[in-house]
Amino acid sequence: MDTSLGDLRAELHKINHSILDLLCRRAQLVTEVLAVKEKEDIPLYVPEREREMLDDLARQNPGPFSDDTVRHLFREIFRASVSLMEQKKIETLRVSRDSHGADRVISVGRHEIGRGPVIIAGPCAVESAEQMEEVGRGLSRLGVRFLRGGAFKPRSSPYSFQGLGEPALRLLRDTGERHGMATVTEVMDTRAVGLVSEHCDILQIGARNMYNYDLLREVGRTRKPVLLKRGISATIDEFLWAAEYVVSGGNEDVILCERGIRTFETQTRNTLDISAVPILRKASFLPVIVDVSHAAGRKDILAPLGRAALAAGANGLMVEVHPFPAVARSDSQQQLDLHEFARFLGELALERTGTPFAPEAFAPRAAPVRQLEG
Amino acid sequence: MDTSLGDLRAELHKINHSILDLLCRRAQLVTEVLAVKEKEDIPLYVPEREREMLDDLARQNPGPFSDDTVRHLFREIFRASVSLMEQKKIETLRVSRDSHGADRVISVGRHEIGRGPVIIAGPCAVESAEQMEEVGRGLSRLGVRFLRGGAFKPRSSPYSFQGLGEPALRLLRDTGERHGMATVTEVMDTRAVGLVSEHCDILQIGARNMYNYDLLREVGRTRKPVLLKRGISATIDEFLWAAEYVVSGGNEDVILCERGIRTFETQTRNTLDISAVPILRKASFLPVIVDVSHAAGRKDILAPLGRAALAAGANGLMVEVHPFPAVARSDSQQQLDLHEFARFLGELALERTGTPFAPEAFAPRAAPVRQLEG
Amino acid sequence: MDTSLGDLRAELHKINHSILDLLCRRAQLVTEVLAVKEKEDIPLYVPEREREMLDDLARQNPGPFSDDTVRHLFREIFRASVSLMEQKKIETLRVSRDSHGADRVISVGRHEIGRGPVIIAGPCAVESAEQMEEVGRGLSRLGVRFLRGGAFKPRSSPYSFQGLGEPALRLLRDTGERHGMATVTEVMDTRAVGLVSEHCDILQIGARNMYNYDLLREVGRTRKPVLLKRGISATIDEFLWAAEYVVSGGNEDVILCERGIRTFETQTRNTLDISAVPILRKASFLPVIVDVSHAAGRKDILAPLGRAALAAGANGLMVEVHPFPAVARSDSQQQLDLHEFARFLGELALERTGTPFAPEAFAPRAAPVRQLEG
Amino acid sequence: MDTSLGDLRAELHKINHSILDLLCRRAQLVTEVLAVKEKEDIPLYVPEREREMLDDLARQNPGPFSDDTVRHLFREIFRASVSLMEQKKIETLRVSRDSHGADRVISVGRHEIGRGPVIIAGPCAVESAEQMEEVGRGLSRLGVRFLRGGAFKPRSSPYSFQGLGEPALRLLRDTGERHGMATVTEVMDTRAVGLVSEHCDILQIGARNMYNYDLLREVGRTRKPVLLKRGISATIDEFLWAAEYVVSGGNEDVILCERGIRTFETQTRNTLDISAVPILRKASFLPVIVDVSHAAGRKDILAPLGRAALAAGANGLMVEVHPFPAVARSDSQQQLDLHEFARFLGELALERTGTPFAPEAFAPRAAPVRQLEG
Repeated sequence: MDTSLGDLRAELHKINHSILDLLCRRAQLVTEVLAVKEKEDIPLYVPEREREMLDDLARQNPGPFSDDTVRHLFREIFRASVSLMEQKKIETLRVSRDSHGADRVISVGRHEIGRGPVIIAGPCAVESAEQMEEVGRGLSRLGVRFLRGGAFKPRSSPYSFQGLGEPALRLLRDTGERHGMATVTEVMDTRAVGLVSEHCDILQIGARNMYNYDLLREVGRTRKPVLLKRGISATIDEFLWAAEYVVSGGNEDVILCERGIRTFETQTRNTLDISAVPILRKASFLPVIVDVSHAAGRKDILAPLGRAALAAGANGLMVEVHPFPAVARSDSQQQLDLHEFARFLGELALERTGTPFAPEAFAPRAAPVRQLEG
Repeated sequence: MDTSLGDLRAELHKINHSILDLLCRRAQLVTEVLAVKEKEDIPLYVPEREREMLDDLARQNPGPFSDDTVRHLFREIFRASVSLMEQKKIETLRVSRDSHGADRVISVGRHEIGRGPVIIAGPCAVESAEQMEEVGRGLSRLGVRFLRGGAFKPRSSPYSFQGLGEPALRLLRDTGERHGMATVTEVMDTRAVGLVSEHCDILQIGARNMYNYDLLREVGRTRKPVLLKRGISATIDEFLWAAEYVVSGGNEDVILCERGIRTFETQTRNTLDISAVPILRKASFLPVIVDVSHAAGRKDILAPLGRAALAAGANGLMVEVHPFPAVARSDSQQQLDLHEFARFLGELALERTGTPFAPEAFAPRAAPVRQLEG
Repeated sequence: MDTSLGDLRAELHKINHSILDLLCRRAQLVTEVLAVKEKEDIPLYVPEREREMLDDLARQNPGPFSDDTVRHLFREIFRASVSLMEQKKIETLRVSRDSHGADRVISVGRHEIGRGPVIIAGPCAVESAEQMEEVGRGLSRLGVRFLRGGAFKPRSSPYSFQGLGEPALRLLRDTGERHGMATVTEVMDTRAVGLVSEHCDILQIGARNMYNYDLLREVGRTRKPVLLKRGISATIDEFLWAAEYVVSGGNEDVILCERGIRTFETQTRNTLDISAVPILRKASFLPVIVDVSHAAGRKDILAPLGRAALAAGANGLMVEVHPFPAVARSDSQQQLDLHEFARFLGELALERTGTPFAPEAFAPRAAPVRQLEG
Repeated sequence: MDTSLGDLRAELHKINHSILDLLCRRAQLVTEVLAVKEKEDIPLYVPEREREMLDDLARQNPGPFSDDTVRHLFREIFRASVSLMEQKKIETLRVSRDSHGADRVISVGRHEIGRGPVIIAGPCAVESAEQMEEVGRGLSRLGVRFLRGGAFKPRSSPYSFQGLGEPALRLLRDTGERHGMATVTEVMDTRAVGLVSEHCDILQIGARNMYNYDLLREVGRTRKPVLLKRGISATIDEFLWAAEYVVSGGNEDVILCERGIRTFETQTRNTLDISAVPILRKASFLPVIVDVSHAAGRKDILAPLGRAALAAGANGLMVEVHPFPAVARSDSQQQLDLHEFARFLGELALERTGTPFAPEAFAPRAAPVRQLEG
């Protein structure tokens, strides 16, 4: 390397530091401007003024940069100042891990979500007292502590079965109480949040309502844990913002549920975005669960998907279980019966010698299944 | 071809006709079964019974088909009977073209949607009286008869500008009245449908609420035209079913709005699904418009997209126009200013010597634009 | 606004200009460094050195910016210098409109692509002399000047019909010569480029080979026009880069063909990305055509899609036409027969009183169709 | 249930069985027809004849089915016969599990793919002898037995680094030999298959060439194992068909590599389709590995993705490792350095007390890493 290059580099080094110096003085100045503005209640950010400043700088541009590059660089510099403010805002973004550090552990009666993996299981829809008793007893004997069941069902067709409504809420609650299980059910309408809250332990926001911001705000006003499903084609960022709607209302008990996204692949109903699990766990302090049934839309790959979800760091799984899937009034293809579910649990544990499910989470598998046949 | 092959074919022909004969007798029989069931209020479709019948047939299967093929063929035969019923249902599906024939023409005050192409324009959000007067006057002089503006804005962040709410409804209505324009605004919450209906001529359901079935039902109960946007990743079928929710409530005045779908492409905010336009026009009697602003998310291709939408058969276009886009509180990148909008209209007409817009739809372009500068 | 704010702003203004001044001096210096490096054949961009400089600046950072922000701002500044170089490169990017201004008009024998809209039509695959004569005569009477037909067919299954190969090339060429049509056929293998070039006027690169860079380079070495199809899920940027592969080999005769992208929607085989048409026309000087048959995968919406494509600025359309689609050996669902194609042309022209197709492009429609029946 | 319903059902039962009887006789007859045809070399499937038969049946249709339903039912019946043949074909479809039962175990020198999980690691591109020695020594000490490195790089831009070509093949081979590792490198051009086969143990087909059927056929003619990556937006079915191209050429040593698919999500470079792992394992006897680096496009979630892939049943992982990622000539963001890779291995094992990697697969982790610093 000859001297000339060395000289040029030394000069470059000096200029870099002069620029740094000016940038920092500029940032200081902006902080002062903002303080004045805040005191005098003047809008902090005025796009026209930014435009004027950029126009002015472009006019003064001697080259060799194009005017567009000058605008771009200064827009970045302006943004850095704005982000000085935003940074504080993001640090206080309520769903972010940074503002909490530790994982959120959500208490639901005697049970918890956010520590060892949990299983939430139950039928797509509450259909009858017999169905609920059958499935509640079976699941509880298998060690499941969270019972799901739809009372209000979002269906593509207005003529399909829309759920039994309020009577279903009562059936679900009674079944949960009889078997010592916490209950999860979906709420779809801001006007129904009060009613559902009365009967149910965890309020579910379905994938189709993830962008229903008024509903998110409404469940944010309750003191019930909220199981928030990712929208059918929501980005991870949008998903976190949806959670922020709930949390910003004062309710920090949000469970994030990855349930697959819509893609071109047709072998599965949705494409389980397994990467979302570690990304969400890293970005947020909230627990993350995976709904394997809705992701797959088929029964034969639920166990590997469940194992993958737990291996990726999920705090739990959601699975559709129906005593007689063939006669279910919705989603009959993807619901497990109790035998299949017991096998599913076995296949989950098989791979995990640490046996996170075994002793307390799940009763021995052989016995209860036999009783189901009795 | 030798005789043997001819003989075999003759026999095949005979068997085909015997099968046809039996299939038709079977269908007749099913119709009778259904009639009895309906009279006695017995569930029409009982999955267990179907399963039993399939099991029985598989047991009797002498080959050479596999049992699965036998099940498959009979499931198709069973379904054909079910679809005999469904066919009648679909013929009476209220959004379908078959049940109406002619196009739906929706009257909104003195204006109409569903005949010649219309333009719906206005700012993303209602921000101030000055902004609305500026844009209302400008658009009206350019011949636009439908004014849009958001009072309640669905935003990804709970901390972003969420719209001015009720005051915005009043500003929108007053501006519309002053300039003889019909007004369009979004409603997001079932509880706000009454309020929004009082002030506004057309109720918009946004893309994020297309699956909000309670909201769809609620606007279906009003007598206001509904502008229904396709969900961000909704299929065309789901879109039609969403419209069916509104129409099944008794409100046939639904305008279908294609606004782009979410794909991997990043040059545009969404991918305008131009094929949806002829498919929706064919499938349904409802008018179809295209929101070019949300599809593109950029300003430089709005005119070719607008021309394409009309060439594909759209009944109109929706465009975001703001007097000063650079200072807009949302979507500042994709809103046209009034000069740009005037040029956009010119570029639409340029290609269409039949001048569908020219005489009454749009005032001469040069004059009003000059006045805007005054 | 009080004096204090005015003072602060004046100072901000001064600092902005000092920063601008330094940035421009810095850019000048970088240009000198690069000149030295180029002369002495030293690598222009050395990531380690950039990292060292960023580390050094972060160490010197006095605040209030975070170290990350300092790194970010300087990375942008460094990049601006790099992009000074790249800008020159992009200006000379050979597919870009900026490096040419005017549209590329490609001469193919007596015909041209790149001015008024053209139609490229013909069967999916060349199957027999009779088929080709039938379709060639029919199309030519309808005024079509570009005949397509596959000799090598990319098929998902290795056991499906893979095209007739070399004999098909000869059939295609002969048919084209008899009816005064230029011919288009796909080449899939670098080793076949020579052979296909001998027989055919335009080399087609199929969607599945858009990323086959060796093949792109190979056709870039020929002097035959190349019809390049967009990959099944290629971004517009990747598509332009693929064209750059061909053009950088010295062959500027590239026709860009939008043919729909893969999305979740199932009503169409692919989702026609209509926005790609104006974006490609703006970004590049190359002609853009739209393959409506592969986009739609169905016949009933081809005319509205064709109209939309032309309205969006496409230089032409590609359509699959087969004399007897029902017995076609591939793509039988989406190929038009000659009557349907004549109607398609009529429906294109109907909406375009400027009659771009009518006088020379298309012969009167009624007569030849009748003859086809004779 | 009254008698009338019972009677109707009894009759239905009888008709069902008569139809079954006829269907089976028909299938028998078709088998005979096919036998004759095969003997006399007459085309087995003639679409026109099928159309004629359907037209004939539709003409004879007495109702109540629509003609379309009759056509549909008989097309299903015809297809069932065709699928009787296809079934045999599928049973002999060479990639399917059914035709093999047991897993394919591929021998590569002293190593194997298809039993316990393996790791394939190495840099994106072969850049220099020093780089390869550094990474080869480091990986080998960590127990890795498969070394990857690109000699021919498919790059979006024709002006980006395209790989060192033949010299890189030699560097890769020499490094592998020195450290007892099998080597993997990509081949992009049919003309290069011979050359690459001479130097390398496993031929990689990249995602962009999955549809390059001539290339697939060409590697199918070699006796080298083929690592086949799923196309960027290929369906699982298309992926299996691509493998069938290779296997049908006589080469059964194909490793299927899931590497993420293109979706709307931007937090990851691609969306890892974890469901593909169990689906491919179930459908095919071929080993399945997961390329976590290309799926994620970021380094911070590789360990959870690796664990998930193995938990879902993958036979191995592929990871990009570069001695100095910051200066890599491609993919610098997603390559791990050797320390990060050692930690990655540790995080894989951590969760798996069965320690599938530990004893033989991986040397103790602490030591070699320290040596790398020495």
